[in-house]
Amino acid sequence: MVYELIIQDQGFFDFEFDNEDVVTSSGSMIVVSNRLPFVLQRNKDGKLIRKASAGGLVTAVAPVVVNGNGLWVGWPGIHLEDPLEPIPESDPNDITPTAGLKSDKVVSVRIDPKIFNSYYNGCCNEIFWPLFHSMPDRATFKGEHWRNYVIANKEFARCTMKALKSVVKSDSTSASAGQNIPLIWVHDYHLMLAANWIRQSAEEEGIACKLGFFLHIPFPPWDIFRLFPWSDEILQGMLGCDMVGFHITDYCLNFVDCCQRNLGCRVDRKNLLVEHGGRTVRVRPLPIGIPFDRFVELAEKAPKVLSTTQKIILGVDRLDYTKGLVHRLRAFESLLEKHPEHKENVSLLQIAVPSRTDVKEYQDLKEEMDQLVGRINGRFTTPNWSPIRYIYGAVSQDELAAFYRDSAIGLVTPLRDGMNLVAKEFVACQISTPPGVLIVSPFAGAGETMHEALICNPYEITSAAEIIHRALTMPEDERILRMNYLRRREKLNDVNYWTRSFLSAMGSLATQDDHDDIGAVTMPAVTLDDFDEYLAKYIGNTHKLALLLDYDGTLAPIAPHPDLAVIPPETKNILLRLSNISDVYIAIISGRNVENVKKMVDIDGITYAGNHGLEILHPDGTKFVHPMPTEHVGKVVELLKNLQEQVCKDGAWVENKGALLTFHYRETPVHLRKGLADQARKLIEDAGFKAGDAHCAIEAKPPVQWNKGRASIYILRTAFGVDWSERIRIIYVGDDVTDEDAMQALKGMAATFRVTSSQITKTSAERRLPSTDSVLTMLRWVERHLSRRKPSPIDSPTYHNYRRNSRTKTTDGVQMEMSFTTSPRSSTHENGK
Amino acid sequence: MVYELIIQDQGFFDFEFDNEDVVTSSGSMIVVSNRLPFVLQRNKDGKLIRKASAGGLVTAVAPVVVNGNGLWVGWPGIHLEDPLEPIPESDPNDITPTAGLKSDKVVSVRIDPKIFNSYYNGCCNEIFWPLFHSMPDRATFKGEHWRNYVIANKEFARCTMKALKSVVKSDSTSASAGQNIPLIWVHDYHLMLAANWIRQSAEEEGIACKLGFFLHIPFPPWDIFRLFPWSDEILQGMLGCDMVGFHITDYCLNFVDCCQRNLGCRVDRKNLLVEHGGRTVRVRPLPIGIPFDRFVELAEKAPKVLSTTQKIILGVDRLDYTKGLVHRLRAFESLLEKHPEHKENVSLLQIAVPSRTDVKEYQDLKEEMDQLVGRINGRFTTPNWSPIRYIYGAVSQDELAAFYRDSAIGLVTPLRDGMNLVAKEFVACQISTPPGVLIVSPFAGAGETMHEALICNPYEITSAAEIIHRALTMPEDERILRMNYLRRREKLNDVNYWTRSFLSAMGSLATQDDHDDIGAVTMPAVTLDDFDEYLAKYIGNTHKLALLLDYDGTLAPIAPHPDLAVIPPETKNILLRLSNISDVYIAIISGRNVENVKKMVDIDGITYAGNHGLEILHPDGTKFVHPMPTEHVGKVVELLKNLQEQVCKDGAWVENKGALLTFHYRETPVHLRKGLADQARKLIEDAGFKAGDAHCAIEAKPPVQWNKGRASIYILRTAFGVDWSERIRIIYVGDDVTDEDAMQALKGMAATFRVTSSQITKTSAERRLPSTDSVLTMLRWVERHLSRRKPSPIDSPTYHNYRRNSRTKTTDGVQMEMSFTTSPRSSTHENGK
Repeated sequence: MVYELIIQDQGFFDFEFDNEDVVTSSGSMIVVSNRLPFVLQRNKDGKLIRKASAGGLVTAVAPVVVNGNGLWVGWPGIHLEDPLEPIPESDPNDITPTAGLKSDKVVSVRIDPKIFNSYYNGCCNEIFWPLFHSMPDRATFKGEHWRNYVIANKEFARCTMKALKSVVKSDSTSASAGQNIPLIWVHDYHLMLAANWIRQSAEEEGIACKLGFFLHIPFPPWDIFRLFPWSDEILQGMLGCDMVGFHITDYCLNFVDCCQRNLGCRVDRKNLLVEHGGRTVRVRPLPIGIPFDRFVELAEKAPKVLSTTQKIILGVDRLDYTKGLVHRLRAFESLLEKHPEHKENVSLLQIAVPSRTDVKEYQDLKEEMDQLVGRINGRFTTPNWSPIRYIYGAVSQDELAAFYRDSAIGLVTPLRDGMNLVAKEFVACQISTPPGVLIVSPFAGAGETMHEALICNPYEITSAAEIIHRALTMPEDERILRMNYLRRREKLNDVNYWTRSFLSAMGSLATQDDHDDIGAVTMPAVTLDDFDEYLAKYIGNTHKLALLLDYDGTLAPIAPHPDLAVIPPETKNILLRLSNISDVYIAIISGRNVENVKKMVDIDGITYAGNHGLEILHPDGTKFVHPMPTEHVGKVVELLKNLQEQVCKDGAWVENKGALLTFHYRETPVHLRKGLADQARKLIEDAGFKAGDAHCAIEAKPPVQWNKGRASIYILRTAFGVDWSERIRIIYVGDDVTDEDAMQALKGMAATFRVTSSQITKTSAERRLPSTDSVLTMLRWVERHLSRRKPSPIDSPTYHNYRRNSRTKTTDGVQMEMSFTTSPRSSTHENGK
Repeated sequence: MVYELIIQDQGFFDFEFDNEDVVTSSGSMIVVSNRLPFVLQRNKDGKLIRKASAGGLVTAVAPVVVNGNGLWVGWPGIHLEDPLEPIPESDPNDITPTAGLKSDKVVSVRIDPKIFNSYYNGCCNEIFWPLFHSMPDRATFKGEHWRNYVIANKEFARCTMKALKSVVKSDSTSASAGQNIPLIWVHDYHLMLAANWIRQSAEEEGIACKLGFFLHIPFPPWDIFRLFPWSDEILQGMLGCDMVGFHITDYCLNFVDCCQRNLGCRVDRKNLLVEHGGRTVRVRPLPIGIPFDRFVELAEKAPKVLSTTQKIILGVDRLDYTKGLVHRLRAFESLLEKHPEHKENVSLLQIAVPSRTDVKEYQDLKEEMDQLVGRINGRFTTPNWSPIRYIYGAVSQDELAAFYRDSAIGLVTPLRDGMNLVAKEFVACQISTPPGVLIVSPFAGAGETMHEALICNPYEITSAAEIIHRALTMPEDERILRMNYLRRREKLNDVNYWTRSFLSAMGSLATQDDHDDIGAVTMPAVTLDDFDEYLAKYIGNTHKLALLLDYDGTLAPIAPHPDLAVIPPETKNILLRLSNISDVYIAIISGRNVENVKKMVDIDGITYAGNHGLEILHPDGTKFVHPMPTEHVGKVVELLKNLQEQVCKDGAWVENKGALLTFHYRETPVHLRKGLADQARKLIEDAGFKAGDAHCAIEAKPPVQWNKGRASIYILRTAFGVDWSERIRIIYVGDDVTDEDAMQALKGMAATFRVTSSQITKTSAERRLPSTDSVLTMLRWVERHLSRRKPSPIDSPTYHNYRRNSRTKTTDGVQMEMSFTTSPRSSTHENGK
């Protein structure tokens, strides 16, 4: 079906129209969609021919591509065996906008037919289609389909890079060189991963580009979306873009919610922003429109087809389980039951366009429809009237325009629908006077924006029948009023407007006139407010607080050499002040050796854990050292020697932490890093150590079941007793992959933050923070929160094994005298308040 | 099945245990659940006997009822034909806690078997079960089932009132009379409507009581919940309670979200509060627990059942499609494929308890399971080993405890589950050393709280297999650590703790020790902040603003007589100031006649609409009067005469508004109102007028298609031209049912508020406001927002038909001089800025 070639579930019309006035101001546009805007077929001679396919979307976007010297990347609708077989030019008689798309402006994607089938039918249609329509039961999450989806998306990304390079090359040779940044527009649920790889490749190649995405189907709520086992990857793929567009605000909010709850991203719900990988991604509602004027023209020209005096209720749908066709027929049956006055006066004309006919689920639906139509017609038909006219197949443009124009009611009642353009095509064609009535489901995007339609929950058969009755008996003046408003909106917000809105949201439109876009487009820096929602409730007013903090990259910014990674004075001061509050317990847990981390932080009375917790220095001076295999000491010496001799070159060096060794290659030239790191890793593993990745470093750890997670729990138990989890609240902050062990171990028991400005795939932390600055802000929040809370009469937990030493500290010039008992392992209570 | 008698989907154990130390401090407890805590059966002689059924929940709650002189309301498990047939006492040998429940402490609910079947199987099991488990495809929303659900809930409410009265009576005769307020605890999705009727009846009867609700299954997200055609009614039914409890915070947030988005309630997400019907409803996460100590005891006593050296992976579930049994078997198959080392060393023991065996969906699942078990066993079985041991049926307590105790892995992987107590029972029984490993699905409530379990997405077969492998190979110290924490939490948060948490959340526990409950329990008064989220984005910085306001009950508090309903000075002042801002257009749209409303508000330069918009007085003095049928005038006179003669008694009177008449019965004694109102309505309709309900009044409207909605659109079009909806932002506020026409007409185009302190069923408004005070706050917000926004260079719409008169106004003592052109219908631009 032609209408399905480019974007599934668009309207039902194909025709040309121009959008030539819309060009991007800054650079060429590369459109990436599953299908190209035309289909290749072989004629009898085996020669490839091009068959134009031009839905409203294509005709709106194609001129922008053609006029802006852009390119279109997509699958040509046929599996070409010879990758070099040239793509034919368009037929000289072709007057559609895509005719202007020369073959050298098309990048045809070739994917192995089996993989394509698994990607397209398996993953897109059998998983994402039902899942994104909130019908998870119909989805079967097969790993194989997902893997082929990944492969296909990588191939689309590769082809897009090819297109990008050719555009950049041609731009740089033209007069308009300089700051022309190409704009890449990725379409729909087939290509949710591609953007990320395009961004990475472009960055590696040093090519600037802007990336935008638009999803043509609904985006489901988190509770549904998270069922998909690889949901994180999808979000991160989409977040590879600078802007992600959806039809309506609800979908935007669902997406933002998923980013926060799945990935732990910082988000701004009000301004629809997501912070990810050190960038701010805009999320925008961009309700798609139709080429309104062309529909009017078609309706004006189309000859009359329906020769009946009956009022026609019109349904036009792909035969898909999301469309609610069975419910619709039942509602019509109920109408005839409850309001027999409509018998012989009203007919339901249902056009069901065949779709995915090779899938069993769709065959079953076809069968159910056939039976139901037969039964209802059998029940009500009279010699001169058949209640349902059911056309299974496509109808011509003219016919459809005539149907739209001459029907009394447009019945658009999907169970779930991204937008539904039939509703819009119907009102565009309603040029007769007096007009008819549109009925729309609240579960379609159109139901959210076409306010003057009658809204009908398709699940409620009886009330749906009543709404049809109300539409059939609606006074003329009300019909005129409603239809006028509906038509005015669709005329204004047509598909051209949609394209312009997209470009405007990308900040690329020549004539910048979208005022809504003036607002903030980057996430504001982390402020105290950011922690209110998440932490205030969690910490409450009564519990003691344990702060477990990594050092490098968390308290101190990463530096070229560990000795240069110094804690900023402000951070140190606030830690000092916090360490003096009796309700606060602080532990610094680092990969450095414990003496070194203590030296770097230099605050007394807190706990230090070094070597990822293998050594723990309690504030009372006692020290815990995790038992090591006895042969370990000799092995360390040997490994150190091997590393120094074999891989300490090109700026790489080994840090000796005692029980651990760390191989640093931060200063090694980028192209040498991988080789050197691989070599070091092998040496480490051959020596019987565990190799752990860190920031431009590999750590050689002794083969013991111990990590920051186990160490954190040991620290907390030692400080607060076996029932620590009942008596304290914990905040854990870390930036390193080794911190993930702690985040996992403390899951549900601690508020966890991962400091990261890069796009890491996965974190067990509940929230992400962009920088060490934001950690400082978080500490400020804690200090302020604690200073505000009322003294608690209830909470005075027993401390175990640990007493804070009495000492004098200077914080911000204020001399504080604190007196504590010093006996270790005392079980007497202490309440500093 | 006994385990299913009270609350579906609880754990699998039945036994006694005591909760005698827990009593409510303030009054008796009445528990309302679909089933009583025992079943009635007939013995061979046709005599009723009582069969105890005592799941963990019952044994925790029963002592509170028994010791607190409370009652239990529920269906006895048998359809009794004779309503007077006495309920037998418990067997003298019965030692379960419910044995203490004397027959006079039980209210047995009788419902017609057909209605019961439709309510229980149709509505509860076939609609709510799949819908609330976010599997909407499996639900069929039949109106008939819903209607029977309503009937059944009304009957439960009626029986509860009976119980309430008997408790109050017995309390008042006892020594503890006075402030003993009975506590009614309604359980689960069978009874989501009952609370509202109980509240209404109790209020009518003047009986004080506290109402609590707990949902034992998940609560779905809004996007799923709203599919149910009567979703509003469900929310309102639950909001009839003082406190609504769910297992986990996610469900609470879903519920709060639904209240805001479906009903337009004001909500507080942070403190989990919902404002409804002038009350604040608390929403609380109350994760249910198990009788932990009794499980330990059982596990200690149970003899060894499994005589095998193989490691056992244990699954125990009702055979239900939510349990993910098919996925689990596939994961196990994948384990044997990927890790053949487990062959002959590991077996999956799956116990599937038959459930709803008369439903086709469950029969199909049974068949699929049978086939799958057969296929996998056929594939891997060796002479001495069968990989899957599949028990379809129930097993004894001792056996199950032994299984729990002796299994290496507890595999709890539902696709969706409210909590899942099998996970908790498993860890309680894991008393052997070293312990096994628990694997839990993230889509079960248990997955949210049992952090140390391995979390496994059941949909991802391959990775599920890897997680089982990880569990099978987990080092002993890690298993001990994880199991210790799991067991400690469950021991602490057992089912007794859960009951206490409920009582504490209800504010009824004798020993108040729940600190979390100290927070705010009533919604704070409406403040400026309330409007930030909703209005700030909507109004933006550039558009003009049209304020369309009702008068009575919106600007002025309702008074016994219209003349006494005076606008508060503060409200008037702010309207005055707003009317002087050129970007603000104000229209007062009232049911009063236009001269009267103008007199009451007394601000010049704004628009007044009277008689629900039949008369509109523009600020330039021109007046619109909706054309009336010519014969109308005479009819009004005649109707006025009839009303005055026949129904103007007992304090009732008729207000003559010109084109309309309003019959007021606000001062009529309550018991006479209905009769009088019915009589008046008949007179009005017989005279050919439309009778419209208002606050203790009936309005006689001429039979024209005109209402506040049409009037609003007329006013806006007159003031701003045909394209008004593109150029202005609109706020509509009203308190009356007649305002709904306007809210509907402006849906999607205006921010709409319904002022209501009562629990109205349905509003088209997007938000509710509790009082006229909050309207004042909203106006303050508007004033502040406008004063802050930057002057816009873009917005200067053409005014049509309407010019603001130049005039001098005094606002708050500030003399303002404004000069405008005065020519009506001028099309020149005017920009007051």
